Amino acid sequence: MDETHKQDLYNRLRTIEGHVRGVQRMVAEDVYCMDILKQTRAIQRALQRLDSLILANHLNTCVTTALRSDDDTERERVLHELMQVFDTNQRS
Amino acid sequence: MDETHKQDLYNRLRTIEGHVRGVQRMVAEDVYCMDILKQTRAIQRALQRLDSLILANHLNTCVTTALRSDDDTERERVLHELMQVFDTNQRS
Amino acid sequence: MDETHKQDLYNRLRTIEGHVRGVQRMVAEDVYCMDILKQTRAIQRALQRLDSLILANHLNTCVTTALRSDDDTERERVLHELMQVFDTNQRS
Amino acid sequence: MDETHKQDLYNRLRTIEGHVRGVQRMVAEDVYCMDILKQTRAIQRALQRLDSLILANHLNTCVTTALRSDDDTERERVLHELMQVFDTNQRS
Repeated sequence: MDETHKQDLYNRLRTIEGHVRGVQRMVAEDVYCMDILKQTRAIQRALQRLDSLILANHLNTCVTTALRSDDDTERERVLHELMQVFDTNQRS
Repeated sequence: MDETHKQDLYNRLRTIEGHVRGVQRMVAEDVYCMDILKQTRAIQRALQRLDSLILANHLNTCVTTALRSDDDTERERVLHELMQVFDTNQRS
Repeated sequence: MDETHKQDLYNRLRTIEGHVRGVQRMVAEDVYCMDILKQTRAIQRALQRLDSLILANHLNTCVTTALRSDDDTERERVLHELMQVFDTNQRS
Repeated sequence: MDETHKQDLYNRLRTIEGHVRGVQRMVAEDVYCMDILKQTRAIQRALQRLDSLILANHLNTCVTTALRSDDDTERERVLHELMQVFDTNQRS
């Protein structure tokens, strides 16, 4: 991962951490439960955007390198891993 | 929300916060991106379990009270809100 | 379910059936696989809209009746069932 | 797509079509709405398995060929398309 990409992920994770602490306060302060639910879902969407960024970078680096190499084992490993990401994604 | 339920949600949110910080360290330490992805998804699953607990409590308290009341506006509001939870859920 | 609601569900299911047959033709005619994928997903979205309509009707009829009744067993059954719908939904 | 893969997809789509017709009968026969919902969700899971098979085949054929070629435009197109599949998937 290059530095700009790493910094972007790191900053997003800091924002998500702040958001999680905000929800802790909402619980402590007895905010209406459906409003808390809206926030926990907003956090999930932020994590999904993070996943997209990680995956886009992964496709452009690791996957491209592996598929262009002559190492059949590595190519299969990378494709198998991608399928797992896709399948878990469908269920999560 | 009763105290046991509140405490449970709060503890789970603290665990999630710790998990998010763990992923920040993984990014800083250049851990393989697909391993980071596995962790961000584990966090999403933990948030989904939290959502289930919030919703189960909501059904047993607010929704039950509203549907048993004679306030038609309140009943419609609660059912409309439930449908929104369900629909957003399908898309997130 | 009242007749209008039943007819609406039935018509949607007929459209979905036609859509599935259209995808069979695409497979037989060697259409580009990513274009087939777009169609199978469009079918899934149509099924999700169907689910929303079924659930909205369920909330306004069965759930409302059950929660307003004095039959505790029935109320618990209906709420338990709703939670299952929500939880499966999160994973599918 | 090779013939075995095509035949597999086609057979699955025929099964799915039969399943959709089965749900039409359930609606016509006034089956309990939550039992209908279980079936529409089973159909969605069958479609997701179909998507997985299509995508696995796509990765092993089109994506591998494109990434191994020297055509930068084609490589970018294929990766962009994969990201769209992933992102829509997250939301559907």
